[in-house]
Amino acid sequence: MIKKNLLYAQSGGVTPVINATACGLIEEARRHKDRLGKVYAGKDGILGILNEQLIDTSKESKADIAALRHTPGGGFGSCRFKLKGIEESRAQYERLIEVFKAHNIGYFFYNGGGDSADTAYKVSQISDKLGFPVQCIGVPKTIDNDLPITDSCPGFGSVAKYVAVSVMEASLDVESMASSSTRVFVLEVMGRHAGWIAAAGGLAQQKPGDPPHVILFPELPLDQEAMLKKVDKAVKTHGYCTIVVSEGVRDQQGRFLADSGRRDAFGHAQLGGVAPVVAGMITSALGYKNHWAVSDYLQRSARHIASKNDVDQAYAMGKAAVELALQGKTGVMPVVVRTSDSPYRWKVGEADLAKVANREKMMPRNFISKDGFGITAAARRYLEPLIQGEDYPPYGADGLPKYVRLKKLLVPQKLAPFEL
Amino acid sequence: MIKKNLLYAQSGGVTPVINATACGLIEEARRHKDRLGKVYAGKDGILGILNEQLIDTSKESKADIAALRHTPGGGFGSCRFKLKGIEESRAQYERLIEVFKAHNIGYFFYNGGGDSADTAYKVSQISDKLGFPVQCIGVPKTIDNDLPITDSCPGFGSVAKYVAVSVMEASLDVESMASSSTRVFVLEVMGRHAGWIAAAGGLAQQKPGDPPHVILFPELPLDQEAMLKKVDKAVKTHGYCTIVVSEGVRDQQGRFLADSGRRDAFGHAQLGGVAPVVAGMITSALGYKNHWAVSDYLQRSARHIASKNDVDQAYAMGKAAVELALQGKTGVMPVVVRTSDSPYRWKVGEADLAKVANREKMMPRNFISKDGFGITAAARRYLEPLIQGEDYPPYGADGLPKYVRLKKLLVPQKLAPFEL
Repeated sequence: MIKKNLLYAQSGGVTPVINATACGLIEEARRHKDRLGKVYAGKDGILGILNEQLIDTSKESKADIAALRHTPGGGFGSCRFKLKGIEESRAQYERLIEVFKAHNIGYFFYNGGGDSADTAYKVSQISDKLGFPVQCIGVPKTIDNDLPITDSCPGFGSVAKYVAVSVMEASLDVESMASSSTRVFVLEVMGRHAGWIAAAGGLAQQKPGDPPHVILFPELPLDQEAMLKKVDKAVKTHGYCTIVVSEGVRDQQGRFLADSGRRDAFGHAQLGGVAPVVAGMITSALGYKNHWAVSDYLQRSARHIASKNDVDQAYAMGKAAVELALQGKTGVMPVVVRTSDSPYRWKVGEADLAKVANREKMMPRNFISKDGFGITAAARRYLEPLIQGEDYPPYGADGLPKYVRLKKLLVPQKLAPFEL
Repeated sequence: MIKKNLLYAQSGGVTPVINATACGLIEEARRHKDRLGKVYAGKDGILGILNEQLIDTSKESKADIAALRHTPGGGFGSCRFKLKGIEESRAQYERLIEVFKAHNIGYFFYNGGGDSADTAYKVSQISDKLGFPVQCIGVPKTIDNDLPITDSCPGFGSVAKYVAVSVMEASLDVESMASSSTRVFVLEVMGRHAGWIAAAGGLAQQKPGDPPHVILFPELPLDQEAMLKKVDKAVKTHGYCTIVVSEGVRDQQGRFLADSGRRDAFGHAQLGGVAPVVAGMITSALGYKNHWAVSDYLQRSARHIASKNDVDQAYAMGKAAVELALQGKTGVMPVVVRTSDSPYRWKVGEADLAKVANREKMMPRNFISKDGFGITAAARRYLEPLIQGEDYPPYGADGLPKYVRLKKLLVPQKLAPFEL
């Protein structure tokens, strides 16, 4: 049997642990050199495959591959590029197969969210049709936690931990200054369509009355009056109020609060920033001094405060993807199956890509408290295990984490350039 | 000899490690019960002393006091309240002495920045004049790193570490997505008057070309054209550009960029937020997609990524303050004396409060690179030791740090209320 090569690509927004998945996949493939060829990786994701820019991971040292486990960002580069349906994007699908053929690819691993699962599924179908069957395996990743079937998505747990810890810490700061200074603190977090990350902020509340006192979810249009009442009550009861707001919160007319047509003094449109909008609302109505933070990419890259369970799952997904390939599977994705909440137990399962593709898992309504500003016990039961455990990166003598930048040497090209 | 009690107060903006100083002070005082009475702490700083709200720290368990070492925020509460000159604020100074007398205070420890050193100095003078001499010891604290004489200020090193690590992490994220997404990332950090914290972001640059590519300091008015050129060059060379901007950056007319009179769609004045202003400038002029983050209180409370050297120094300052008191000193402050850059060595020294009071240590011009957008080797030599070492808080089974909230039981009041 001629050994086929593996092709791995990272897709969409990166996470603190997507490289842990790459690490699991490459290390597992290296354990099976008797049956598997080299692992190539698309430079900047699927764009690199279309452009025949394939990174040869066999040129990376064992230590550097191991260091991927604790390095945030996308080690091979990622991209925001969605292949459309097969009829619309036929040339691109055919190009993929052409690149697969040219480089003896037998296995394609696409590490991303719902769109990527869809692409991987379509590639598996078309590769059959075009007479060059490739085993296509989806590998789950998204901080948005919105993939179906899998109990949780690698990347989410670490972002959740960052947000929960940050809420705790900033609240201790505000609490200690509130008698003469800031009364209201607003933290903006990611999650344009689903409130999973905002909900994670609620984990900071270890007992009733603890911060955060208000969470604003994208699932519910903002009831400004009710929010102001709740904020005022928190300040009057606890001396201060901590608010977690999802970037995706909308007003009663369905418009994003963050896209409220603001212009700065230079006349530039302001991008993003729902936290200052909410903070301004509160100070205008109630007069309390506010502070606000927008953690933006910091939350998505904070490998220094990753969740151990999340890192373990990210690694396990990469490893399992290779195992599925070795079992001859195609059109599938490894998933996390929860077997117990407390103590938390999980195992690796398997899902059909067709069932994963293009389906968003929204947060259940019963995860949001009745008044709409907090999380329920059910949400806590689900979320808490995902932030458990610490998994610190190693640090150098300079006090900085030892993150790796790979060599990213490209495989020699064999094909004519492709017009995207 | 009748044992005198100690009175400790936290002042001004809190830090990730001000409680480590409180821990050092209380633990050292407890080691000298033969000579020292109880340690009281002002509730919410000096306001609590004026209002005769004194927390009896002897009611806190040994474990809870030990946990202060790893708990951010101000464990006893702090405040922004500056006593003026003795003539202007005579009633307040007299009230302090009245409270000292009523509670048999022999030692006053004021844990803060330059203003607090000034207050402690004045209290030491007036207590003599009023015939109730109290030993007044300043204890250094400020994330702004602007106290004179001491080589560094407890609190700064941990904020510096947070900023440097965050710049590294977010840059890895941006770098991996830049080919098809965000090209410019702007992180806003604290430091209204001095660029120490912004400079710390420069530590993320381990070799030439590494991020951050641009730092904007409050010391230099923004040269917009030069900045845009530098950003464009970084994007063309590296594919992306990371920018660290101090909240205190001003335009050529000396106005804060952050106070540029912005209004949101609701007509509310926008408070703070220089990052979106800088990001907007760049996208307007160069067209690059941007993302921006404002870490605000997160940076000031991120005990989870504290610098070990900083924690050690914060603790040592508290301990040394009690030692100075036991030596009969007054009108002094323990300081950090650096004896070697590499390997980093330091010891505890002592400064006259009169020489500390109301003097700001600005960043030397030779710490900023010639073009004004980076740090020099001299800056790096000074800054790097301050972020060295990790000192993680313990975590619970719930995945959250075990931060302590004290009982804060008050000493029974003996005086009539005081009108502030």
